[in-house]
Amino acid sequence: MKKIPLFIFFNLFIKVTLTAQINTPIDLDAVTDAHFLNGIQILNELISIPNDSNDPAQLVPNIEWCEDNLENRGWDVKRLETKSFPLLFAEKSVPNAEKTVLFYFHIDGQPVDKKRWNQPDPFQPTLKKRNETGQWETIPMELLKTDYDPNWRIFARSSSDDKGPFAMFLTAWDAMIERKLMPNYNVKVILDFEEEIGSPNLGDAVSKYKDVLAADMMLIMDGPRHLSNEPTLTFGARGISQITLTVFGPRAAQHSGHYGNYAPNPAFRLSKLLASMKDEEGRVIIPGFYDGINLTDKEKEILSRVPDDENEIKKNLGIGSTDKVGNTYQESLQYPSLNIRGMSSGWIGDEVRTIVPADAIAEIDIRLVPESDPERLFGLIRNHISNQGFHILDHNPTDEERVKYPKLIKWEGSISYQAFRTPFDSEPGIWLNKAFVRAFGKEPIKNRISGGSLPIAPFVDALNVPAVTVVTVNSDNNQHGPNENIRLGNFKEGIKTALAILTEKL
Amino acid sequence: MKKIPLFIFFNLFIKVTLTAQINTPIDLDAVTDAHFLNGIQILNELISIPNDSNDPAQLVPNIEWCEDNLENRGWDVKRLETKSFPLLFAEKSVPNAEKTVLFYFHIDGQPVDKKRWNQPDPFQPTLKKRNETGQWETIPMELLKTDYDPNWRIFARSSSDDKGPFAMFLTAWDAMIERKLMPNYNVKVILDFEEEIGSPNLGDAVSKYKDVLAADMMLIMDGPRHLSNEPTLTFGARGISQITLTVFGPRAAQHSGHYGNYAPNPAFRLSKLLASMKDEEGRVIIPGFYDGINLTDKEKEILSRVPDDENEIKKNLGIGSTDKVGNTYQESLQYPSLNIRGMSSGWIGDEVRTIVPADAIAEIDIRLVPESDPERLFGLIRNHISNQGFHILDHNPTDEERVKYPKLIKWEGSISYQAFRTPFDSEPGIWLNKAFVRAFGKEPIKNRISGGSLPIAPFVDALNVPAVTVVTVNSDNNQHGPNENIRLGNFKEGIKTALAILTEKL
Repeated sequence: MKKIPLFIFFNLFIKVTLTAQINTPIDLDAVTDAHFLNGIQILNELISIPNDSNDPAQLVPNIEWCEDNLENRGWDVKRLETKSFPLLFAEKSVPNAEKTVLFYFHIDGQPVDKKRWNQPDPFQPTLKKRNETGQWETIPMELLKTDYDPNWRIFARSSSDDKGPFAMFLTAWDAMIERKLMPNYNVKVILDFEEEIGSPNLGDAVSKYKDVLAADMMLIMDGPRHLSNEPTLTFGARGISQITLTVFGPRAAQHSGHYGNYAPNPAFRLSKLLASMKDEEGRVIIPGFYDGINLTDKEKEILSRVPDDENEIKKNLGIGSTDKVGNTYQESLQYPSLNIRGMSSGWIGDEVRTIVPADAIAEIDIRLVPESDPERLFGLIRNHISNQGFHILDHNPTDEERVKYPKLIKWEGSISYQAFRTPFDSEPGIWLNKAFVRAFGKEPIKNRISGGSLPIAPFVDALNVPAVTVVTVNSDNNQHGPNENIRLGNFKEGIKTALAILTEKL
Repeated sequence: MKKIPLFIFFNLFIKVTLTAQINTPIDLDAVTDAHFLNGIQILNELISIPNDSNDPAQLVPNIEWCEDNLENRGWDVKRLETKSFPLLFAEKSVPNAEKTVLFYFHIDGQPVDKKRWNQPDPFQPTLKKRNETGQWETIPMELLKTDYDPNWRIFARSSSDDKGPFAMFLTAWDAMIERKLMPNYNVKVILDFEEEIGSPNLGDAVSKYKDVLAADMMLIMDGPRHLSNEPTLTFGARGISQITLTVFGPRAAQHSGHYGNYAPNPAFRLSKLLASMKDEEGRVIIPGFYDGINLTDKEKEILSRVPDDENEIKKNLGIGSTDKVGNTYQESLQYPSLNIRGMSSGWIGDEVRTIVPADAIAEIDIRLVPESDPERLFGLIRNHISNQGFHILDHNPTDEERVKYPKLIKWEGSISYQAFRTPFDSEPGIWLNKAFVRAFGKEPIKNRISGGSLPIAPFVDALNVPAVTVVTVNSDNNQHGPNENIRLGNFKEGIKTALAILTEKL
């Protein structure tokens, strides 16, 4: 079932059952250093197993590896059946513990295109260092027995997203147990094998397994640190909903010579509609769109502590100006967005033809914050569209509707995920801050909310517990693409982060 | 070289040289009736020869057929060499004639997709009648020897566009010669074998063959009658120019969660720009765009005589309102158009992805009238774009330009054809009107300008002679598509039209 790891260290599986609570501080750096090679072994074993979420046959050895490795450590493990691939649940009860923390990881990965990887096999962990010309050069994995550079990286699918964090967690667990320590809270782990395909069964699982999953808080162990690579916590994620708008012109595309100036052009009508939704600086001007969002000076101050270099961001993106929804990049993420992600009418380029198009389509995505209920936003936008003189349909127009209504539009809206956001001064916020200060000697960068959306959001919503995302990996890890990697320094600091959390009194 | 016609009539080639001028009226209907079957034979011979303009090998038998058929009639024929396929020129000098009329036809056709034709071969002329259920049903071509219905049709590529009109012309010529008549003007014919690929060499040919082609007027024998199928003359054609606008966002598409609300969205910016160009009723609001166009009450009155049923047009197009550039459909054609023929940004439908697109493209075509010099319009539009805050490039932006200019757009403009328009009361206008009144007992429908553009426009411009388009075929002839056809009534009236023109004193 398991691939053979590249090299075999002394295998340190300590099977003991401890009931001792944390009562003495430990030297996080020293313990982490001592267990680093154990962590590399766990990581390399796990990332050697192909894990395309679209292929359940690949997922089976992954879930078996996880079962084995949790059972070996004395956890209670069970599969939670869903409509497709099961979730894996594991629990470690701690006598007299009052609180329970649920850790989330996902084990599946994006598909790989082997041709685009600079190594023969994306599932053969490959150690690389950057040479003088800036190229990544393979070096023997054995080198790690005697040498270490935090900037070396291990390349393999899911090394960062998200097997790396699970390997960090298991390594930290082993280190803690070796020191005869235990958390002072019950620990639950939920492993997802369908995250990269949108975790379609995660939300439903809560209603079925609510008692099993019950916890006081949830830590989502996934995602990259801030660009500065400083220790980071993220306190929420924007949600996402989407609308497809189709504006109708003539029933079929018409010769632009015969009917230009006469048959209304749907691309112009769509342009006018979209243009009416935002001002020149990208702010939505539909009344009520930003209602409920009132960033206080204190919140703005906390946001301003995120060390973004906006000139660098603009240079990297290749833009000479930014939208002005917020005063800063971080502030811009605190608002719902209204983004045209796609637009099409007629034909362009080599296929262009001189016609009045039959329709014009805009694909819109709306990133949500907790203040912006998507149904309410949909209502505001529909109302705005009506006010522009459109008759809104949920279907393609009939001949009768075409003649009856001068301006016709089709609306197709759907809501994927709601937003979630946990206050900085919530119980997990305060507790994690303490663990990070203990580990790194300073407070972490705190993202109030991530711009992107997480498939886990319905799960968080349904569980109704505060959730924080503990991010550890390097932001340039090429997740989802070819040559995904994890920086050794991040892997080591990730072990330390997990160890600090596991040994922080709650 | 020639395909065998479906059936062989008595072949009426009268090789005589006449110098007689027209001096007696002839019974146009009787003469046309007498020559109708001769016309069908000429038509069927010619449309049996495949003629895809993209395939010079197919064009060779066509030009040879035309040479033979003009030489057999005693014309002076020569090929005018061009950079690709030659034009064919033929001349018939008439002693003592003071004027010269140049007739234009094209012999090439659009490509055929045989699978989509309801007959085995688009180059096998097929006679059909409409049965009780409205379907076209093949009937034997031989039936024409004894029977005739104006609503029967012959189906084949180029039956209407444009071999049909050339067959009408040759038939009328034969009929006239049989009656020992001649025009009172010199006749020149120019045959184009590249019209369907935009007549790329026609404009240049004028400078090379200016003396050969010299004439007092030109009759373009191509195109369908008004929808009412009443006799029609068209006095010009709108020109066409085009612009591709590319608005730039971030250098590469960006995750809409990470950069929505921050990286400016090029689709919104393009929408705002396009929206600023026109009002709600489709009128261009860029100052000066319609300068020089002042339809007089008299011109409006003449335009109003075109028997358009606008409710029927709207119903056919499936539109509940029209743009208000003009008060009527005919008036709308008297103005330049500004049409979005294509628009694209990001991805739509199954390919949609949650990104801020890297760019947004609009393909615009501008139909031109004689008052609207395309260079002047380009200047007005560029000025308008600058006034919206855009920096206009003729290339994709460099990294420096991206950072320097907040709003970037690329402009790619080109002019295909200028417009031309001949006054109703010009010499050809008055003369043709007389011929039509003689043939049909009433004035023809007069289109001041056609909405569409003609590849012949540069030729007309360069020759600098008044040009009128003599249209004869049914408007529902499916030109360019599968099942192209010509209605027998139109073919017969086309012969009569040509005969009336050839025998009308100039």
